[in-house]
Amino acid sequence: MTSERVAVVGTGLIGTSIAMAALRAGCEVAGFDADPDVLDRAARRAGGLRPASSLEACVAEATVVVVATPVPVTASVVAAALEANPITIVTDVASVKSHVVREVEHLSSIEASSRFIGGHPMGGSERSGPEWASASVVDGAVWVLTPPSDAAAVGVERLSVWVTSMGAKPVVMDPARHDRLVAIVSHLPQVASTVLMGLAATEEAGEPDILLLAAGGFRDLTRLAASSPELWSEILVANRDAIGEAIDLYATRLSELRELVLGSDGGGVERTFADAKRARLALSAKPQVRTGVAVLQVPVPDRPGALADLTAALGSASVNIEDLQIVHSPEGGRGTVHLTVAASAAGGAADALTAAGFEPVRLA
Amino acid sequence: MTSERVAVVGTGLIGTSIAMAALRAGCEVAGFDADPDVLDRAARRAGGLRPASSLEACVAEATVVVVATPVPVTASVVAAALEANPITIVTDVASVKSHVVREVEHLSSIEASSRFIGGHPMGGSERSGPEWASASVVDGAVWVLTPPSDAAAVGVERLSVWVTSMGAKPVVMDPARHDRLVAIVSHLPQVASTVLMGLAATEEAGEPDILLLAAGGFRDLTRLAASSPELWSEILVANRDAIGEAIDLYATRLSELRELVLGSDGGGVERTFADAKRARLALSAKPQVRTGVAVLQVPVPDRPGALADLTAALGSASVNIEDLQIVHSPEGGRGTVHLTVAASAAGGAADALTAAGFEPVRLA
Repeated sequence: MTSERVAVVGTGLIGTSIAMAALRAGCEVAGFDADPDVLDRAARRAGGLRPASSLEACVAEATVVVVATPVPVTASVVAAALEANPITIVTDVASVKSHVVREVEHLSSIEASSRFIGGHPMGGSERSGPEWASASVVDGAVWVLTPPSDAAAVGVERLSVWVTSMGAKPVVMDPARHDRLVAIVSHLPQVASTVLMGLAATEEAGEPDILLLAAGGFRDLTRLAASSPELWSEILVANRDAIGEAIDLYATRLSELRELVLGSDGGGVERTFADAKRARLALSAKPQVRTGVAVLQVPVPDRPGALADLTAALGSASVNIEDLQIVHSPEGGRGTVHLTVAASAAGGAADALTAAGFEPVRLA
Repeated sequence: MTSERVAVVGTGLIGTSIAMAALRAGCEVAGFDADPDVLDRAARRAGGLRPASSLEACVAEATVVVVATPVPVTASVVAAALEANPITIVTDVASVKSHVVREVEHLSSIEASSRFIGGHPMGGSERSGPEWASASVVDGAVWVLTPPSDAAAVGVERLSVWVTSMGAKPVVMDPARHDRLVAIVSHLPQVASTVLMGLAATEEAGEPDILLLAAGGFRDLTRLAASSPELWSEILVANRDAIGEAIDLYATRLSELRELVLGSDGGGVERTFADAKRARLALSAKPQVRTGVAVLQVPVPDRPGALADLTAALGSASVNIEDLQIVHSPEGGRGTVHLTVAASAAGGAADALTAAGFEPVRLA
């Protein structure tokens, strides 16, 4: 538990979720939103959140300010917060960092900029609005912090301790490195998914049957394509240099695989696939990818009530299911279930499932 | 119900699953596998399957022969079956068709080739071996039939009736068109996923933290990368021309989006994403994509037992869950569940969920 006084500016889903996690961690929390209705709804959702009448009133007494506004206005709100409270640390939650850091440096004094430690909690939700907020959004999530080179070490340490008290895992890196890495593992997947869906949809004009042949793999790959166009347009343009490089790297590898296929180099194609398979299995097994959780693989028979038996066994053992996926399911309903549970609950979950006749295997 | 006498040659997971669906439909079914142990296991799994001592004995009395061997030997086994029984229809299950058709024409007489109607049931499983077979693999699945231009219409009609009796949905098209369409909606997703995983894994050598930042989207996109390298190498090389074209189309679109991003054309990026989003939502809502099923969207609270309550409600109503996905779940466990159930069970499922306090919305 920490005793920070937290100010959350921007009380949408992420801001309100952070407020709830901070309240849970024992912090005092004030909130402000430019839209009084959003602030009202946030205060109803997060019991204990003190609504403030202005940004200045919100941050006046704060020791940590979290700016959780849309990307395009983040830097100006950060600059306003740095000015309104001349001693506090200010952080944000924007998913692109160099762009925000540069803008804040442009808008603020050198002293003020050194108190801005960019942040990116790697959680989220497809929803929006404070109604859907939950402290669980940050539970076990990686929370990147991008301090400027002249940040006071004590400030970075203090923010890391606070992030840890919130239930997340702080990872410190410089803004450019953050942007390069998320371009590959977060933004490029979105691009790959959107472009695939756009291609299939265009082909459909001439081949109305094409989506009849789209099975589970296509659906897996295009699920992200339903994400918000506004949000992703902002993110990609804000991170444009790193995105350009990530797409180039991806296109080069696609072209290499294309040459192997067209040259009927079955061995080369197989090696490309085997390398990727090894990496994917290592990713599933990699406990540090997500701290605090475990993944159980459970074969499930094809009959009504089979999933009910599985989830009931976990419910009776008071195990909360963080995620459940029917993996590579055939078009019929039979399949293997991958269950994500808190690591501390994994033993109990496995015992409860075994007692109920399932055969769980812990993957990670 | 039909009274076909079915011969299944190759009794791995798919062959045995088809045998089980045929037995369920009231057919007599004989089976043969070059590996006696595999045939033994298939006979144990599929009660009623008559094991044959040779390919010739298996197909001698058959009215429909299904060849379910690996892609590289499919054409030669098809040719042997066409020769062993001079009047029956022979079909296969290979996921690439032009290649198999060309090889069969090369190996067989014109008369025999005209009795080969290629097939591709669009189901599957990540597993292999007859133990994991189930008639449900074909339930509601699209089953493409690719008759040669000189096939007897009565043969195509008869095979379509049989496929329907098996619980699947026959779709007739020519082999080249099948291959072009699956290159885009089945093979390209596999390529896109494998290449993304390979890229991230290579980057990891210089940036050990990269996979720390990989959240749900990356995992969704790379799940397919754990598929069999041998199988996919065979498929891609067999369908190389169509794959080359599909990768070209994909690369062109990636490059177009890259230009929009690098040019900071936020409006253009947003339109690209909005088009893809519209298509993806239409895909979810498109009832003909998968006959006979319905999708319910259900918000689920974040507490132990919530999924148990949901699945128990369906179990009590004797509703079989065909697929269950926690969609775009944040790193915490709260989320929206997409449930796939038989269309005939959708009303009952919605009522049972509503009675249990959930708020299901039918998406498709």
